[in-house]
Amino acid sequence: MVNETQHTFSASSSSRSDGSSSSGSESLKDNLRCSAPVFDADRHERLRDKMRRRQDAGDKWFSLEFFPPRTANAAVNLISRFDRMGAGGPLFIDVTWHPAGDPGSDKETSSMIIANTAVNYCGLETILHMTCCNQTKNDITGHLQKAKRLGLKNIMALRGDPAGEEWEEEVDGFNYAVDLVKHIRNEFDDYFDICVAGYPKGHPEAESYEADLRHLKEKVFAGADFIITQLFFRPETFLKFMKDCQAIGITCPIIPGIFPIQGYHSLRQLVKLSKLEVPQEIKDVIEPIKDNDAAIRNYGVELAVSMCRELLDSGMVHGLHFYTLNREVATTEVLKRLGIWKEDPRRPLPWAVSAHPKRRVEDVRPIFWASRPKSYIYRTQEWDDFPNGRWGNSSSPAFGELKDYYLFYLKSKSPREELLKMWGEELTCEESVFEVFTCYITGEPNRNGYKVTCMPWNDDPLATETSLLKDQLEKVNRRGILTINSQPNINGKPSTDPIVGWGPSGGYVFQKAYLEFFTSSEIVTALLKVLKKYELRVNYHIVNVKGQNITNAPDLQPNAVTWGIFPGREIIQPTVVDPVSFLSWKDEAFALWIKQWAKLYEEESPSRMIIQYIHDNYYLVNLVDNDFPLENCLWQVVEDTFELLN
Amino acid sequence: MVNETQHTFSASSSSRSDGSSSSGSESLKDNLRCSAPVFDADRHERLRDKMRRRQDAGDKWFSLEFFPPRTANAAVNLISRFDRMGAGGPLFIDVTWHPAGDPGSDKETSSMIIANTAVNYCGLETILHMTCCNQTKNDITGHLQKAKRLGLKNIMALRGDPAGEEWEEEVDGFNYAVDLVKHIRNEFDDYFDICVAGYPKGHPEAESYEADLRHLKEKVFAGADFIITQLFFRPETFLKFMKDCQAIGITCPIIPGIFPIQGYHSLRQLVKLSKLEVPQEIKDVIEPIKDNDAAIRNYGVELAVSMCRELLDSGMVHGLHFYTLNREVATTEVLKRLGIWKEDPRRPLPWAVSAHPKRRVEDVRPIFWASRPKSYIYRTQEWDDFPNGRWGNSSSPAFGELKDYYLFYLKSKSPREELLKMWGEELTCEESVFEVFTCYITGEPNRNGYKVTCMPWNDDPLATETSLLKDQLEKVNRRGILTINSQPNINGKPSTDPIVGWGPSGGYVFQKAYLEFFTSSEIVTALLKVLKKYELRVNYHIVNVKGQNITNAPDLQPNAVTWGIFPGREIIQPTVVDPVSFLSWKDEAFALWIKQWAKLYEEESPSRMIIQYIHDNYYLVNLVDNDFPLENCLWQVVEDTFELLN
Repeated sequence: MVNETQHTFSASSSSRSDGSSSSGSESLKDNLRCSAPVFDADRHERLRDKMRRRQDAGDKWFSLEFFPPRTANAAVNLISRFDRMGAGGPLFIDVTWHPAGDPGSDKETSSMIIANTAVNYCGLETILHMTCCNQTKNDITGHLQKAKRLGLKNIMALRGDPAGEEWEEEVDGFNYAVDLVKHIRNEFDDYFDICVAGYPKGHPEAESYEADLRHLKEKVFAGADFIITQLFFRPETFLKFMKDCQAIGITCPIIPGIFPIQGYHSLRQLVKLSKLEVPQEIKDVIEPIKDNDAAIRNYGVELAVSMCRELLDSGMVHGLHFYTLNREVATTEVLKRLGIWKEDPRRPLPWAVSAHPKRRVEDVRPIFWASRPKSYIYRTQEWDDFPNGRWGNSSSPAFGELKDYYLFYLKSKSPREELLKMWGEELTCEESVFEVFTCYITGEPNRNGYKVTCMPWNDDPLATETSLLKDQLEKVNRRGILTINSQPNINGKPSTDPIVGWGPSGGYVFQKAYLEFFTSSEIVTALLKVLKKYELRVNYHIVNVKGQNITNAPDLQPNAVTWGIFPGREIIQPTVVDPVSFLSWKDEAFALWIKQWAKLYEEESPSRMIIQYIHDNYYLVNLVDNDFPLENCLWQVVEDTFELLN
Repeated sequence: MVNETQHTFSASSSSRSDGSSSSGSESLKDNLRCSAPVFDADRHERLRDKMRRRQDAGDKWFSLEFFPPRTANAAVNLISRFDRMGAGGPLFIDVTWHPAGDPGSDKETSSMIIANTAVNYCGLETILHMTCCNQTKNDITGHLQKAKRLGLKNIMALRGDPAGEEWEEEVDGFNYAVDLVKHIRNEFDDYFDICVAGYPKGHPEAESYEADLRHLKEKVFAGADFIITQLFFRPETFLKFMKDCQAIGITCPIIPGIFPIQGYHSLRQLVKLSKLEVPQEIKDVIEPIKDNDAAIRNYGVELAVSMCRELLDSGMVHGLHFYTLNREVATTEVLKRLGIWKEDPRRPLPWAVSAHPKRRVEDVRPIFWASRPKSYIYRTQEWDDFPNGRWGNSSSPAFGELKDYYLFYLKSKSPREELLKMWGEELTCEESVFEVFTCYITGEPNRNGYKVTCMPWNDDPLATETSLLKDQLEKVNRRGILTINSQPNINGKPSTDPIVGWGPSGGYVFQKAYLEFFTSSEIVTALLKVLKKYELRVNYHIVNVKGQNITNAPDLQPNAVTWGIFPGREIIQPTVVDPVSFLSWKDEAFALWIKQWAKLYEEESPSRMIIQYIHDNYYLVNLVDNDFPLENCLWQVVEDTFELLN
């Protein structure tokens, strides 16, 4: 994901006679000044430019197509799938558009909102499909405006299927995809990257294959940036199509649409919709095993891998577009076997970036939301400027209201029954809560035999990095230091370190040790006495639900706790402990006790009252050990606190 | 210079019963957000607030008074004196105002311009005196506006001496200092800090001591922030005055003016002007030794030290104001003996900051001007915004033109004859130039027995930090790598390190190794071949006077080469190698060959032609070793280059 190309700039060629390779540039100082550092080129480039860059670098890529889900639950699952498949490094994903499904609405399952989520919350470059047939100009402009407002930058312009059988061209209406392409370019200039569909066998309704090629050329000349093709079953189909396109002057990228056969019924349905014919050699294999889903899938994967290999080996194909049918296994398998799935994608920053254009420069966040990045993005979505370079320089508006952010995709993914099994059907005392935290840390089953795989503050199992601290975390959680966020200190590990590394290679990453936990006022009282001994070394913020607040932060300044030093770049410091944001995070962190945990139990039940008691009386504490080159002293601070209490 | 106080904030007191020391603040998040990080409180505070803070901290301080010089040469000397005496840590300096000397003009010797230089180029908090008698309202307003425009923030409001013997009050004119105080407050609101003069023996023209105290009170009540007194000879004179002031309700700081007697004649002259009487016990000592300057100065120092001690011991005095008479020795001696001269002041940043209010947030500069900070300040004086946090974010306008910056204080301090002795009366070949560079590095005398204590690019002897590289620098300069700027790599030394440390204590400072030099195109050709082996590790910029430019900097981004990590703060990265600024620096660096060196010789002389040849044909090269935790590889790069050439 990170651009590491270095280049020699040359504005005019040199006339030196000594034979060295220099080149001259007098005008350089005038026009090459960038206003913001390009730390991660992917965040700044348009999709079409990324595509070119990958092609120029001889870098093969893939993209993934999804359709909008039917239910809110399916949407939650699809978004998790975005996160998992996004980890494989697709160049983009696209979301289809079904006029019957109210695709431009604000419903959590609409194409518009799913694409918005993919861009903003999953950080994926996304193409939103859009059809134009049977729609008014106003409707279409409205959809495009909304897409732009939500940070979408790419549109797949399609005609769509006519509503009735008796479709007739409307005068001055949107009859073909080319009308939509022209409309987008007219109304939105060069804002959107536009993709159009290509039909390797010709569009079923076209007069002829040649006529269809001419229509495609019209779409490209009207302003489309690249083409994705309909699925096909033989590599030679695509290669011939591509040559035919080039022959008539289509020079933009043409991306083959790959459909790994995943089952007998899905294949039949797709063939019916697309009016394609399945070649006999494929029918011959499939028909005999049509009731064996696994066998068909295996065959589909084999077939797709072999076709993709042939396409890539042709030298004409640089990227592959997958029709996933919203499924994960087959496509992932094909990509892994092709060797273009990134097993361990480099992280450009320690946290997942958003792909909204206005967040392009964002490179600093408070550490508090480390396990809740989507909540952070949601609560800051109204900001006009994002901290860049330094947190302290941002005059950011306030965080979004708590009441706003209980969006479906911020809810826990686990159902109530499962949460009860993990967090306790019945709590008897504060110590039962300590036990839940401890089991989450250790990964051991709780007393009823269930593993605690998530917590209200952590939707996922313990991060690998945090695992490094497992033994100490276990010890302190048992005694009522209920940890929800932590990081070890790091004194210059390579940026390529598989656990703590991020950013371009050749750099070094650093961290100050951080520990954040809920704990009782008794422990806080002792802790404060202990902290006096560490006054110059440890910064602390201690706050309860009412906002009573104790800190030794100088002038309420943020404290950078993660930073990286890279070749030829300025310092990047992506995570800070910011005293002011901590008070917004505090509201969220305390609310999660009630909204996620206490609410599992009956009102007035002892279990609920225990959680309510903790919510009302515990403090949220964060500690930073500033002396990052030395051994982390925070465990000693906690140890000293327990000793003082005894 | 750095504020390290930490505090617990408390907006409302706590009602907690567990006895811990917390305090509550609900409104915190609303109003305490700072828009810029306070790295160095001194740069953000007003003089009156600094004074209060030092008083509250029980920290004794001193200030220094100077008068404007008569000649340009004297101005150059005075500015060097500002730098040297500034290193002792005065809270402020002040520059007197003599209406006869055109004090508000743009002449390099005017009070206005000297004060401007002290603020902008020497980074000193400065008070500009201003008198009002016999001047029009317009003149005065004009002076004040100009002072404000130049970044001056403090005015000492004085009446000044009436022009003729027959002075009469003007109706509605400026007859007394109080009129000027009122005028400043009327026209400039609270922009300026205002100081007024106090007369411990009463003003010579006042009706009485009591009447004079009442006048002083009027000045304070009209808006003065503090008082500096006329000189006096006995501590009890000041202490009585101070008590009398307090008795009539003057509560602002009152700073005693200390006049170390430095010679018989200067004392007589001052006494005549101030109409003060020298006490008999002092006359008794001085008269017998009036022709022995050294003896009088020694006595003056003794007397001043003893008087200052008594004042400080009284507990009523926190700061001492010195009438230096533009001399260095006596005042410095008194301050050292009092223990309030800072022998080794902590550097807030690796480079000398400017005190102009608009540069308050500036905390990043290109490394190129490290030895020419005044030139950098001059060439950026028209900027409206200064890089803060990151260089790359600044959309800075271009650097000021070369032709502008040959200001008198940017000229070499040494006269032509001295420079010729250092840099060679007669150059015979390029190697004679190598020798000059080598002698500057080693500190050894040149072949004519003269030490080379400055170079066109370095007005001062080699920096202590650079001395660490002495042996290697000597070796490469002998062979024609003519170094003008360099720094060693540093991997986390304490910020209190006496040589490389800067910023608040408790932090760690880092550097990437840097080397900048002129060299021949033959060496550049070999160097470029060698650099291929170091492509991922070393960033380079190579440019000749015509602007032919070779670099491997990614996307022309700046490379941070000095940074610091401090407790409870964001990362500070004060020095970068910026490819774009390098092209502006290149113009300056090449021009110095001609303007400072070649011009020492006759036109058409061989010496001049050698320098001209170097100017026309050599390249300016800078190298950064990005791998700061490893041993500096730049010496190996140079070694490899020489090997390739052999």
